[in-house]
Amino acid sequence: MPDKELRLQRAGMRTSRPVMLAIAGDSAAGKTTLTKGLVQALGKERVSAVCVDDYHRYDREERKGLPFTPLHPDCNYMEIMAQHLQLLATGQPILKPVYDHSSGQLVRPELVEPREFVIIEGLLPLHNKLLRACFDVAVYLDPPEDVRIGWKLARDTSKRGYSEEQVRAELARREPESAEHIRTQKPHADIVVRFAPIAGRDSPGTPLSAELLLRPTIRHPDLSAALSSSHHSPMHLKMLRDEDGRPVDALHIHGYVDRPDTAALEEAIWEELDLHMPLPSDLGDTGSGVRSEPLAITQLLLLRHMLMAA
Amino acid sequence: MPDKELRLQRAGMRTSRPVMLAIAGDSAAGKTTLTKGLVQALGKERVSAVCVDDYHRYDREERKGLPFTPLHPDCNYMEIMAQHLQLLATGQPILKPVYDHSSGQLVRPELVEPREFVIIEGLLPLHNKLLRACFDVAVYLDPPEDVRIGWKLARDTSKRGYSEEQVRAELARREPESAEHIRTQKPHADIVVRFAPIAGRDSPGTPLSAELLLRPTIRHPDLSAALSSSHHSPMHLKMLRDEDGRPVDALHIHGYVDRPDTAALEEAIWEELDLHMPLPSDLGDTGSGVRSEPLAITQLLLLRHMLMAA
Repeated sequence: MPDKELRLQRAGMRTSRPVMLAIAGDSAAGKTTLTKGLVQALGKERVSAVCVDDYHRYDREERKGLPFTPLHPDCNYMEIMAQHLQLLATGQPILKPVYDHSSGQLVRPELVEPREFVIIEGLLPLHNKLLRACFDVAVYLDPPEDVRIGWKLARDTSKRGYSEEQVRAELARREPESAEHIRTQKPHADIVVRFAPIAGRDSPGTPLSAELLLRPTIRHPDLSAALSSSHHSPMHLKMLRDEDGRPVDALHIHGYVDRPDTAALEEAIWEELDLHMPLPSDLGDTGSGVRSEPLAITQLLLLRHMLMAA
Repeated sequence: MPDKELRLQRAGMRTSRPVMLAIAGDSAAGKTTLTKGLVQALGKERVSAVCVDDYHRYDREERKGLPFTPLHPDCNYMEIMAQHLQLLATGQPILKPVYDHSSGQLVRPELVEPREFVIIEGLLPLHNKLLRACFDVAVYLDPPEDVRIGWKLARDTSKRGYSEEQVRAELARREPESAEHIRTQKPHADIVVRFAPIAGRDSPGTPLSAELLLRPTIRHPDLSAALSSSHHSPMHLKMLRDEDGRPVDALHIHGYVDRPDTAALEEAIWEELDLHMPLPSDLGDTGSGVRSEPLAITQLLLLRHMLMAA
C-alpha cells in the first residue's frame, strides 16, 4: 500500500467547518444559562453544545486518593480534549467521553457531530494554546466570587443533593486550583462577562448588571455612537485599561434598564449583519421568569459574533 | 483570535509516526494468537495492540431490536474507527471506546498512546478506504470455515460460557454478514494467511500448514532462491493467479516441517534487515505448547515487514 502520507492527508480532508464558541468559567459561573439562550435563538438543529467537563481522567472513587480536584488539568485528558476540539473545528465527529455527575462514574461515550455552530462550555476550554486555537470567539464568565458562591449553593443543594457545608468545603478545597487553572484563562478570552449587583443601586428582584470587556482580539461592532460614556447612564461604553495595561472597551448594562431603552443598542449590535434573520426576541432568560436585559444584550452580542464568523 | 486555520494546522503537527499493521479476519480466525507472538518478539514496551471490535454503536440489549449482528458496519462507529486509526497513524493518542464482552455493555473508554508499532486487529479494520489508508502492512486471516468453526466452538464454550448450540446458532445468524462485510476485506490485504490441515498428510498433533499469499502491494523478500517450487517439498514458493487473475506468490509451509529445515527460509526473510536484532527465537506459539513452524514463519515475515517500515 504505497503513498500512505498522501492517503492520510486526503482522508482527513473535509470542507465545512463550524463556528466555534468557547464559554469558560468556574463552577456555577452561569455558563449553562448563557448557552441556553444562544441555542434557543439559533435553533437546536443548528447548534452542537458540548461540555468539556466530561474529560475526566479519573472517576470519583479514584480521585479520593489523588492530591487534586477535577479543576486540575492533570485530572483531565487535556490532550484528548484539544484533539476533540480540533476535530470538531474541522467539521469531524467525535466520540466524547461522558462523566455521570450523579454517580461520579465514567460511562459510555457519546457521538457528537458538529452542526453549523459548536458551543464548548466548561471549566478549562481555554486552558492551553491548542485548545484556544480551536475557537472563533472565546468568552470568560467572571462573576464576583460572592455571586458565584450564591449560585453554586443554590444549584448544588437543590439539584445535586449536597448540603451547604459540603458545598462550602468543596469550594475551599478547590480555591487554589481555581486561582491557578480557571481564573488564569480570563486573559485569553475575547469577551469577559461579569454579572454583578451594583452596590446601592439595585432594589430586590432587579436583574444583575453586566460588564463586558470587549477585547480587540476580535472585531466588535462600533457601539460608541449608540451609547453614552457617562457612568450615570444605565448603559454606557467606556475605555478602560485591561489587566495587562492595554486599552479595552467596557460595555455596561445596568440591571434596571428597561427594554425600550436597549433598542438602539440592540440595533447597533445587529445592524451590520446582512441576514434575513430578525433580531431574536426571546433572549435574557435567567430561568427565574424575569427577563434580564444585561443577559439579553450579552447573548445578542455573542450571536452577532457567531453569525459574523459563519 | 486570527489565523485559526494556521493555528489548527500547527496544532496538528507531529513528527514521530508508528508502523501500523492490520490483522483482519472473522471471529476466532486466529488474530490474537498471531498478534501475541509479534508483541512478544518486538517487546511489549514497543507495541500498542488495539482491537477495533470495541467500536460498537449499540450494547447487547440495544442490538436485540436491530436487524444486524456486530459484524455489520452499521452496528459500529466506522467513521470514528477510521478517525482513531488516522490519529494513531499520525502518532497521536486516542480515547478508545471499550465494549465489555462479558456484560455486553459499552463502558468507560481508555487512553491508547501509539508506541513504535501499532497492531490493529479485529473484524473490520480493512472495511473501507479510510481505514486501509492507515496501514503500512495489512493481513487477512483466512482459515477454512471448518477450522475456524472448530476454533470458535473451543473458545466460546470454554472461555465465554456459551453452549455449542448457541455458538452454532450465532454462526448461522452471522454468515450473511460475514460473507458481505468480513470476507470482502480479503482482496485488500497485502498478505493473506491460511492455516489449514493438508488432507491425508497430517498425523494427529501435527500443526496446521500455512499458505501465505504475498501480494505485490508491498515489497516482500526474495524467497525464490531459498525455496523450491515443488509441491512435494515441505516448504515451497509458487506463482499463482490471485482471485482477480493477477500473478501472486504463494508461500507454503507444511505443518510437519522440522525446525532445522526452516533455517534457510528464516535467513532469507531476515537477512535484508540491517539491524542488530537477532532472529527472534520464541515465535510459533499456538497456545498448545507445541511450536508451529508455519506460525513462526508467518510471524517472522510480518516482523520483517514491520521492522522494514520503521
